[in-house]
Amino acid sequence: MHKLAKAFSTIRDQTSRLMQPLSAEDCCVQSMPDASPAKWHLAHTTWFFETFILERFEPSFQPFHPAFRVLFNSYYEGVGEQHPRAQRGLMTRPALDEVLAYRQNVDQRLLALLGQTLAPEQAEQLSVLVELGLQHEQQHQELMLTDIKHLLAMNPLLPPYLASHAVVEAGAATAAAAALSWQSYEAGIVEVGHAGQGFFFDNETPRHRQFVESFSMASRLVSNGEYLAFVEDGGYRNPLLWLAAGWEWVQQQKLTRPLYWQSAHAQFDSAWREFTLQGLQPLALHEAATHLSFFEAEAYARWAGARLPTEAEWEYAAASQSADYFGVAWQWTTSSYAPYPGYVALPGAVGEYNGKFMVNQYVLRGSSSATPAGHARLSYRNFFPATARWQFSGIRLARSAERTP
Amino acid sequence: MHKLAKAFSTIRDQTSRLMQPLSAEDCCVQSMPDASPAKWHLAHTTWFFETFILERFEPSFQPFHPAFRVLFNSYYEGVGEQHPRAQRGLMTRPALDEVLAYRQNVDQRLLALLGQTLAPEQAEQLSVLVELGLQHEQQHQELMLTDIKHLLAMNPLLPPYLASHAVVEAGAATAAAAALSWQSYEAGIVEVGHAGQGFFFDNETPRHRQFVESFSMASRLVSNGEYLAFVEDGGYRNPLLWLAAGWEWVQQQKLTRPLYWQSAHAQFDSAWREFTLQGLQPLALHEAATHLSFFEAEAYARWAGARLPTEAEWEYAAASQSADYFGVAWQWTTSSYAPYPGYVALPGAVGEYNGKFMVNQYVLRGSSSATPAGHARLSYRNFFPATARWQFSGIRLARSAERTP
Amino acid sequence: MHKLAKAFSTIRDQTSRLMQPLSAEDCCVQSMPDASPAKWHLAHTTWFFETFILERFEPSFQPFHPAFRVLFNSYYEGVGEQHPRAQRGLMTRPALDEVLAYRQNVDQRLLALLGQTLAPEQAEQLSVLVELGLQHEQQHQELMLTDIKHLLAMNPLLPPYLASHAVVEAGAATAAAAALSWQSYEAGIVEVGHAGQGFFFDNETPRHRQFVESFSMASRLVSNGEYLAFVEDGGYRNPLLWLAAGWEWVQQQKLTRPLYWQSAHAQFDSAWREFTLQGLQPLALHEAATHLSFFEAEAYARWAGARLPTEAEWEYAAASQSADYFGVAWQWTTSSYAPYPGYVALPGAVGEYNGKFMVNQYVLRGSSSATPAGHARLSYRNFFPATARWQFSGIRLARSAERTP
Amino acid sequence: MHKLAKAFSTIRDQTSRLMQPLSAEDCCVQSMPDASPAKWHLAHTTWFFETFILERFEPSFQPFHPAFRVLFNSYYEGVGEQHPRAQRGLMTRPALDEVLAYRQNVDQRLLALLGQTLAPEQAEQLSVLVELGLQHEQQHQELMLTDIKHLLAMNPLLPPYLASHAVVEAGAATAAAAALSWQSYEAGIVEVGHAGQGFFFDNETPRHRQFVESFSMASRLVSNGEYLAFVEDGGYRNPLLWLAAGWEWVQQQKLTRPLYWQSAHAQFDSAWREFTLQGLQPLALHEAATHLSFFEAEAYARWAGARLPTEAEWEYAAASQSADYFGVAWQWTTSSYAPYPGYVALPGAVGEYNGKFMVNQYVLRGSSSATPAGHARLSYRNFFPATARWQFSGIRLARSAERTP
Repeated sequence: MHKLAKAFSTIRDQTSRLMQPLSAEDCCVQSMPDASPAKWHLAHTTWFFETFILERFEPSFQPFHPAFRVLFNSYYEGVGEQHPRAQRGLMTRPALDEVLAYRQNVDQRLLALLGQTLAPEQAEQLSVLVELGLQHEQQHQELMLTDIKHLLAMNPLLPPYLASHAVVEAGAATAAAAALSWQSYEAGIVEVGHAGQGFFFDNETPRHRQFVESFSMASRLVSNGEYLAFVEDGGYRNPLLWLAAGWEWVQQQKLTRPLYWQSAHAQFDSAWREFTLQGLQPLALHEAATHLSFFEAEAYARWAGARLPTEAEWEYAAASQSADYFGVAWQWTTSSYAPYPGYVALPGAVGEYNGKFMVNQYVLRGSSSATPAGHARLSYRNFFPATARWQFSGIRLARSAERTP
Repeated sequence: MHKLAKAFSTIRDQTSRLMQPLSAEDCCVQSMPDASPAKWHLAHTTWFFETFILERFEPSFQPFHPAFRVLFNSYYEGVGEQHPRAQRGLMTRPALDEVLAYRQNVDQRLLALLGQTLAPEQAEQLSVLVELGLQHEQQHQELMLTDIKHLLAMNPLLPPYLASHAVVEAGAATAAAAALSWQSYEAGIVEVGHAGQGFFFDNETPRHRQFVESFSMASRLVSNGEYLAFVEDGGYRNPLLWLAAGWEWVQQQKLTRPLYWQSAHAQFDSAWREFTLQGLQPLALHEAATHLSFFEAEAYARWAGARLPTEAEWEYAAASQSADYFGVAWQWTTSSYAPYPGYVALPGAVGEYNGKFMVNQYVLRGSSSATPAGHARLSYRNFFPATARWQFSGIRLARSAERTP
Repeated sequence: MHKLAKAFSTIRDQTSRLMQPLSAEDCCVQSMPDASPAKWHLAHTTWFFETFILERFEPSFQPFHPAFRVLFNSYYEGVGEQHPRAQRGLMTRPALDEVLAYRQNVDQRLLALLGQTLAPEQAEQLSVLVELGLQHEQQHQELMLTDIKHLLAMNPLLPPYLASHAVVEAGAATAAAAALSWQSYEAGIVEVGHAGQGFFFDNETPRHRQFVESFSMASRLVSNGEYLAFVEDGGYRNPLLWLAAGWEWVQQQKLTRPLYWQSAHAQFDSAWREFTLQGLQPLALHEAATHLSFFEAEAYARWAGARLPTEAEWEYAAASQSADYFGVAWQWTTSSYAPYPGYVALPGAVGEYNGKFMVNQYVLRGSSSATPAGHARLSYRNFFPATARWQFSGIRLARSAERTP
Repeated sequence: MHKLAKAFSTIRDQTSRLMQPLSAEDCCVQSMPDASPAKWHLAHTTWFFETFILERFEPSFQPFHPAFRVLFNSYYEGVGEQHPRAQRGLMTRPALDEVLAYRQNVDQRLLALLGQTLAPEQAEQLSVLVELGLQHEQQHQELMLTDIKHLLAMNPLLPPYLASHAVVEAGAATAAAAALSWQSYEAGIVEVGHAGQGFFFDNETPRHRQFVESFSMASRLVSNGEYLAFVEDGGYRNPLLWLAAGWEWVQQQKLTRPLYWQSAHAQFDSAWREFTLQGLQPLALHEAATHLSFFEAEAYARWAGARLPTEAEWEYAAASQSADYFGVAWQWTTSSYAPYPGYVALPGAVGEYNGKFMVNQYVLRGSSSATPAGHARLSYRNFFPATARWQFSGIRLARSAERTP
């Protein structure tokens, strides 16, 4: 338990560090229903530990604040009512300071719990739930960054989250000088899903077999420069490049470029810019393109004479590769988020964590520059709707064997 | 100018006093598109002085911040672009402190300007615009209260704005013990619109003649207790009591009671409650009913066998009355907001202040418990759409002569 | 009663004549929620006679079809439920032939009733209701034309309703050669509302006094040529010409011209066209502009340095004029549709005919080329929302005295 | 070609037979954007032959009507503009008779073409396209029935399409007396996709290998009686049974039962009813439940302790089974509609037929009582969004091996 307590402190502290550049105002506001205020992330991750661990293991549990059970319940029907998602930004109270006090209180109680001697079965259950809570916390660390980036980008002043390039979005540069090459893979049965000892989410199980036909995979992610060629070739104006639903979306939203790009014809000068966590920057042509939706990724692939990989292909290829499979940008797959054969959700309310979202979402694999250290793994399944653009999501191309000369 | 400078300081300080119970978070968030964040009110009223006065009168005018011209322009097309109204709450930057610094800077420059010796014509123009800016500031003082009340009411914690009943909503109690009586008025030509020396908005002019048929007016506003009888008589379930558009709105919004009332069947006990600036309170049956829309006021009047007054009737009656015509609740009239015969808007961009809203809005007369001292007058025309409920708006009944026994 | 029976037959026949150029398909479809299918008009006007007259006066009344009570009830809450307005076009059954049989059946029964000898009081009541039903029928005759015109205009084939110009939209030509002149009116008390013996709707009463300040009125309606000058002067691109709500509407709907105009840059050649009941025609520059909304009319008036008249001004001026006050295009007034002082709706469900619509609508006066002969009168109050464009609605300008040189 | 000409006549005649119970009004109206008017189906299937065959093979091709190219283009961007889908029901012209004349004209020209002697390559291409057009026609035959059923169900009169049970929805009865049993399948590599000589759509190719873990499949479809048990057990009120997006949909739409069921508490008596093509009928408890969305099917499966099959499982099981895999109801799979590995769309505009819809849709397998004879096959992939309810779609349950005792 000592090791777990240490991990707990480290990860919880990292969350606090991420909010340090932010004012109480920055932490309170919700820029769109899909995003949440930083304060809500701070409180909800704490609620997770309080509700799923303290309430179960503390002998005379008393909630920190009775209203928080509803206020900071994201979507667990098994726990009860939830504050409406689109109204998370209206909660100017509890104040940020109160939420930080909430964090401190739950941290202390959780650490006290971890210091106690428990029956082995109880200790095991506690350990499993704490680890789940920490992985959950790490997911929200990344979401805090994507959500705050979206909020700042909606502000005409385009304020940077950070002055320097140090903390995140570093390492996004790919070896762009190197030409994109294709690695071939033979057809065969592959094993997909979590293996080994470490932590995993229920949606990564059971490990099972899939048959993969022969294919090849791009050696690196699509770069900003490559994506710019698509934009400048009229990619956003040609319906034949898009899925029908994607084209409808492009027209309704009047899209002409990635979410955070600013066109050459706008302010400043003749070069493209991109809003980053360090503010508005010249578009880095050699870095991996990010903040792309599934629809954009899929259209780009068609334009490039390729396609997106399936989950199984990606997992197969990533196992034997290093490069930029992790730590740069999440990579869209053409696989709809669905249960693996034999999938069983966790028992109880935590079983709602993953399973109930398995419809109309597409799986992303790998991890991004905003993913916390230690959170990435080969079998990890991230998922978002086909229109989601505010994540650090990019493109790795694939090809079926027949199509590779 | 000395007197004007003193008024300027007094009124600007009063705005600051109103925001003192609020945190930076409270000041930043927008609860609905119709409402604005307190921080925006603080900045926009300052923008008004900067844009319409400093920019014109300061010899070497430099804006406090070039982006503010767009950010805090509410709706003046003559000034240029405007930040979208529904996105006022996304501006976590400039921070509250920066906006307060903006206020301080503009205040100093404005006072410096008022201390200068100007040519008589210039002095006159300056004086007119400063007074307009102060009246504008006072309008926003009331809006700050209605908007912050709406925000706090959206929070499940129902936090009070103030602990005590002292500052606003005082005096809302009507002489409820006194039975409602009817005062009769003879038919004849009445003069409507601003007369005399004080300040007035362009929409109160020109003073003109209207013929008013004989009518009678209620001696006091409708009380919460009386409105409760309407609610309990099924008022929100009977289509025959409502205008067709009002009934459609009641059904779509599933309305069953005034905006801030909490039904007897909800939490606590068997009594009705009302959310106030002092938090949730027992419904004060003897006080004037407020936060009613035109549709609700109109339906109540029909249920009560009466009607709403016209503007001309109200102004005629109010001139000879004291009682609660002012200082309790704005009073809906059945008059659509329209130009008086011969109306001419102010020249230039300030001409957009009033005139361009003269459609699909209904006039309210009097003033409310939240109206700043000295801001009310007989000819004042407030206006809101028929569905607006978040203002301190109530009901004074009228009757045509034929219908009074 | 004989005279009434004759009027009944004449007016009912005229409705049938209007539908003769239409197929069953044309009669069935609903082009937008505001419009109704011709078949629905045929049935609803029949329902009116059946429900408000036969059901009351026939000794052993049996409905023609029990479901019709709901299906063809437009908005009478006092009668009971209504088929949803936006779904009137889904009723492919009853077929057109069945509806025509319904008409024939009700006509025969109504005529039989009119042939009976009744007690004087009953006879009087019957006569009043039949006349109301006939006026109602005539209103729907005009709506049938505006609704079918809208439907045909939505069809890319732009099929004409009629081959020749004979039946409607004739006489729309104004004496365009004559320059527009202004007729002045002195200030004074005028009487407004119905006077005399003929039929009137409850909303035209009671006749009452209004004081009208001096004003002048345009000698004729605004022509297509004049409105074209507004269009070509950038009228639809200048926010300063519009009410704020009107400008928002123009931008949302991307409006650039009147509803049925086809721009010079489109098909054919370099001249503007207008879709009419005779199909697509060259824009008749000397005819009165029609199919304009209140917002368009109001913006045009501002551009032209004038304004729209009030109801009282219009009625005052029309009483002493002939010209094109009637029979060309309905004329928007700046008066919101509101009850006259002392207004009392008819008793019973027919009391819902007019009164409950008195909010957020603007009054139009006069009559149009599509108004049935004998249906127009000086005190008639037509009304539509400020965005309505599919009526035969045009512009007569007015000016306050001070503004006329 | 003679055989193809005969098939052509037979299938085209069958379309005409399907519309015979319908009036011109029935054929014209569109009940929702997802459905199309029967007249549009009649014209669009004709347009398909005219555009993709006559235009290519007729030496001096002249379109039947130049406007039809746009009017009846469903979604082929490669052909050009399309009439907006939601406005298909506004086309009262061309009249039904004109569309029937269009059909006759194109039929004659197509048959003439088939009677000509062509170069072998041309003959082959013609033959492929005619067969594609006929399969397309058969798809629209089923859609005509589902769309007309939806239209009639929206009519409060609930008119039947047919008097007798003869033509469609026959054979929907399952061997309900027989208890539901489970057939087990061993894990292994299965081949999925079209094999053999007959017609197939591009989305059924290439035939490829998939690894299927061991599972078991229900011996028959879920019956109305079984689904009723789910309804009466509160299935539509328990969020834990639904995917999150499904639960949101259930609440927004206020769903409590399948699309065409009428609750026991409604009209008539105490028994459940179902609207069918033969009108309102007692709910046939032993027949297969239909008109269920993916969300409803998935929730039912969870309630029943099972799951939906994947496409590969279904195709594997169906190959060795007979029973009700075909001809009763389409069966939802848990497989998102996606390209098979190596999938290549047809060249040219017909390549838009299938591929561009491969997102946010779920595959249905088998066929229904409304599927034309000869149109079903093992590898057929039907697809609809997770909310689609107006198709003849039902449920076959599956289980992973581990979960079967």
